[in-house]
Amino acid sequence: MNGAQSLMQTLSNAGVKICFTNPGTTEIHLLEALEHAGDMRAVLCLFEGVCAGAADGYARMTGKPAATLLHLGPGLANAAANLHNARRARSPVVNLVGDHPVYHQKNDPPLASDIATLASPVSGWVRQAQNPAGLPSDGAAAVSASMGPPGAPATLIIPADCAWGESKPFAGTMNTPKPGAVSSRAVDAAAEMLTSDGPTALILGGKALLEPALTAAGRIAQKTGAVLLSQTFDARFARGAGRPFVRRLPYFPEDAKKRLASFKKVILAGTNPPTPFFAYPDTSLQLLPTGCEITALCGFSDDASAGLAALAEALGAENADFATALPKRPEKPHGPLNPETAGAAIGALLPENAIVSDESGTSGAHAYRFTAGAPAHDWLCLTGGSIGQGVPVATGAALACPDQKVLCLQGDGGAMYTLQALWTQARENLDITTVIFSNRKYQILKVELHRLGLVDAGPRVTDAMDLSRPDLDWVHLANGMGVEASRVDNAEDFYNDLARALAQPGPYLIEAVI
Amino acid sequence: MNGAQSLMQTLSNAGVKICFTNPGTTEIHLLEALEHAGDMRAVLCLFEGVCAGAADGYARMTGKPAATLLHLGPGLANAAANLHNARRARSPVVNLVGDHPVYHQKNDPPLASDIATLASPVSGWVRQAQNPAGLPSDGAAAVSASMGPPGAPATLIIPADCAWGESKPFAGTMNTPKPGAVSSRAVDAAAEMLTSDGPTALILGGKALLEPALTAAGRIAQKTGAVLLSQTFDARFARGAGRPFVRRLPYFPEDAKKRLASFKKVILAGTNPPTPFFAYPDTSLQLLPTGCEITALCGFSDDASAGLAALAEALGAENADFATALPKRPEKPHGPLNPETAGAAIGALLPENAIVSDESGTSGAHAYRFTAGAPAHDWLCLTGGSIGQGVPVATGAALACPDQKVLCLQGDGGAMYTLQALWTQARENLDITTVIFSNRKYQILKVELHRLGLVDAGPRVTDAMDLSRPDLDWVHLANGMGVEASRVDNAEDFYNDLARALAQPGPYLIEAVI
Repeated sequence: MNGAQSLMQTLSNAGVKICFTNPGTTEIHLLEALEHAGDMRAVLCLFEGVCAGAADGYARMTGKPAATLLHLGPGLANAAANLHNARRARSPVVNLVGDHPVYHQKNDPPLASDIATLASPVSGWVRQAQNPAGLPSDGAAAVSASMGPPGAPATLIIPADCAWGESKPFAGTMNTPKPGAVSSRAVDAAAEMLTSDGPTALILGGKALLEPALTAAGRIAQKTGAVLLSQTFDARFARGAGRPFVRRLPYFPEDAKKRLASFKKVILAGTNPPTPFFAYPDTSLQLLPTGCEITALCGFSDDASAGLAALAEALGAENADFATALPKRPEKPHGPLNPETAGAAIGALLPENAIVSDESGTSGAHAYRFTAGAPAHDWLCLTGGSIGQGVPVATGAALACPDQKVLCLQGDGGAMYTLQALWTQARENLDITTVIFSNRKYQILKVELHRLGLVDAGPRVTDAMDLSRPDLDWVHLANGMGVEASRVDNAEDFYNDLARALAQPGPYLIEAVI
Repeated sequence: MNGAQSLMQTLSNAGVKICFTNPGTTEIHLLEALEHAGDMRAVLCLFEGVCAGAADGYARMTGKPAATLLHLGPGLANAAANLHNARRARSPVVNLVGDHPVYHQKNDPPLASDIATLASPVSGWVRQAQNPAGLPSDGAAAVSASMGPPGAPATLIIPADCAWGESKPFAGTMNTPKPGAVSSRAVDAAAEMLTSDGPTALILGGKALLEPALTAAGRIAQKTGAVLLSQTFDARFARGAGRPFVRRLPYFPEDAKKRLASFKKVILAGTNPPTPFFAYPDTSLQLLPTGCEITALCGFSDDASAGLAALAEALGAENADFATALPKRPEKPHGPLNPETAGAAIGALLPENAIVSDESGTSGAHAYRFTAGAPAHDWLCLTGGSIGQGVPVATGAALACPDQKVLCLQGDGGAMYTLQALWTQARENLDITTVIFSNRKYQILKVELHRLGLVDAGPRVTDAMDLSRPDLDWVHLANGMGVEASRVDNAEDFYNDLARALAQPGPYLIEAVI
């Protein structure tokens, strides 16, 4: 057995069951080895940014690492923006990057570059394989590293001669990392804060936003009057009717400051203290009110479920009732299509157990609000601010959860970054409804320009924020990749098309002109 | 004047006349400054890979740096694959990358990452601005660094507070780098080699492939019997009827070895010794025959024109006649459409002074051969092997040379990487005819698989090389971005559509189903 076969077999045995591929010549032996790698599924993506985003979406829904297969430095570079998002989501992803044999790198052939350096800012772990015999343990180490804690992309660089050289099956022991234990001191400090006077916020992040941690948080809130908050964006929110209601912080710092102004005490569970997305001239970055006390129950690497359960127990709330979001759906909307009526239609129609991949930018806030009382569902955010994540993450989520409907809410600007994902959706016949919010501009930039007081910007500025001239035609673009699509420009048509798309299996795209 | 305005003014004064933008919030002041930056043109691209490729294409045709405006680490990451190609083309490109202020980076907001590390493998020069007052000299240094010699992407990272803070106009002196002088010893060594016995190859690269160096090389060849060769891929070939004929090395090492087998001596002008694109098991990487003597007349950083002129003079050939490619066009092709008939149509129709952006992969070899006697034209290659360069480079070349027709020959696999460039072509009404060679597979991988003897590959392997299921519809994709298009599947229709597209101004795409 060659190194590639030994590696792929190791990955499969370690629980890696899917590989998003865009291979080249240096990866041919790795690709060939996939054929023999048990039940590992190979999914072709026509751009590496799709591979990385899909691996992230898969990992968010399964908690298990997905692999990518990438072609040297440029393949890794194309994946890097969505690996940045995956790193921010703390998703386990195993990148397999082919390279020239070391003896050829010294000839500096055209595709040679410093892959390890390129990979390091978007990876929690980087290793270059040294020989074929070591490749299976390199693979086992990569899987282990990807799982953290916390999860992160792990990048294994594989010179082609390691892939084609002679190797053996992995003979070591897989190290399956576990999240860190939450100290009783941290639990006591949080309990003390919650039982003393003054309004307290419990800010949840990462796994604390998922069951069973979420229910424990709900009990704590009910028992103590603490308010459950989250960051604006996180990897995955379990939400909807029947689940504890978590309020997320507004995006702009002035709004977040208002939301946080009344809290004297903050407990962090699985997240950092809130900070603005961007800095602005003459604007303080401090979101929490002056004198606000902070304590961390658990960090990114810790077991948030155990920590919140222990805290609930310390408060005598381990079996307490807790408030949940009540079932509530907006009315079917009428009239013009805009973010609010689109959001109402989504709130009215979102099916139970749906997975929402949200990169809707300025168009999606209403959809989030209107789905608070929709049947229980998962909501996946743009974690690292690098646009072009929504459609790939939807793709990976659908592969992870074939029995759940995926709804992708995607701004047109970001959609253009990784539109190639639609082809993979068609090829794999994935059950995804994509809504493109087609406002034909980088609306967020127009908002920011206004906030910065640059209101009389000239044509070079406004042109650079304007996606019209010509208008993108998303029906044509989707059809060009084999995905059925329609365009709507009023609330009734949007509601009707969305209802039909959600009811039928397979990929469908709606261009919502707002 | 703020730092952004001072920077953009400096760049414009230093000769940077175009900026390919995809800005975000951290770049708003830089964008606003473009409004006041004299005659610098701002061109919006809907993905940063398009910015980088277009900047490369512009630089290849003008020899002058183009700027890109990129959004933090992810924006740079998205540009990195085509920056890799630009680095291999030795193109001057100035990347302007916005970042958080340093005082916000410590809060680790979602978009924060290590931009300098990401940039270093694809840049010849990286600097992070320290304060607004230093920004204009940082910009001048970036322009200078981008021009080398040899040219390379230069990346300037601009924390937002440097852009919005108070600055002054640039008061320093622009350093305009010049290529290095070729030593008389190198000229003498080459002259001695050319006047001694035995077949000699003169391998040209970089600026040695352009006038006036090319004519000097033609004279040297004529006088001495040396054979003019080039690497398989280079940034720009000046070629066609009336110009010295340069034979390029075949792609596969076994073919290149055959081509080189008869040479006892090799002179390098502006390039490295030839090396294979990829290594293969049990295959020597040595392309030149054993015992072949090598001498370098000039390297990447040297003045190839002066070096070849000096060599011609040393040989007494400075005014000699020289052989040129004779005008010759293939007949109008008939019958099925395949790489050969498509190539014949291109050879029959290529207009004088055309610029060909070639990323045709396995489909384009015939087109290169059939245009050897076409009217004089420029041929731009995929320099770094990172697919997705062809359409963006065509875009930048068309902006650089509005009076020349651009023909983009592009494989479908690579076209999917940066198809967003078509939208910029439509918006700017660029005079580009794009031919998509639609073979619906990664044909090169099928060839490589066969060469490696992996002939009985299973479905996971063959699926990963297959772009059908569903077929991409390039007419829909082009129309979706505002570019007129047609699909053809026989030689006559291809000839007729190509003739019409080349005769009419503006962007047009032909899907050539082969």
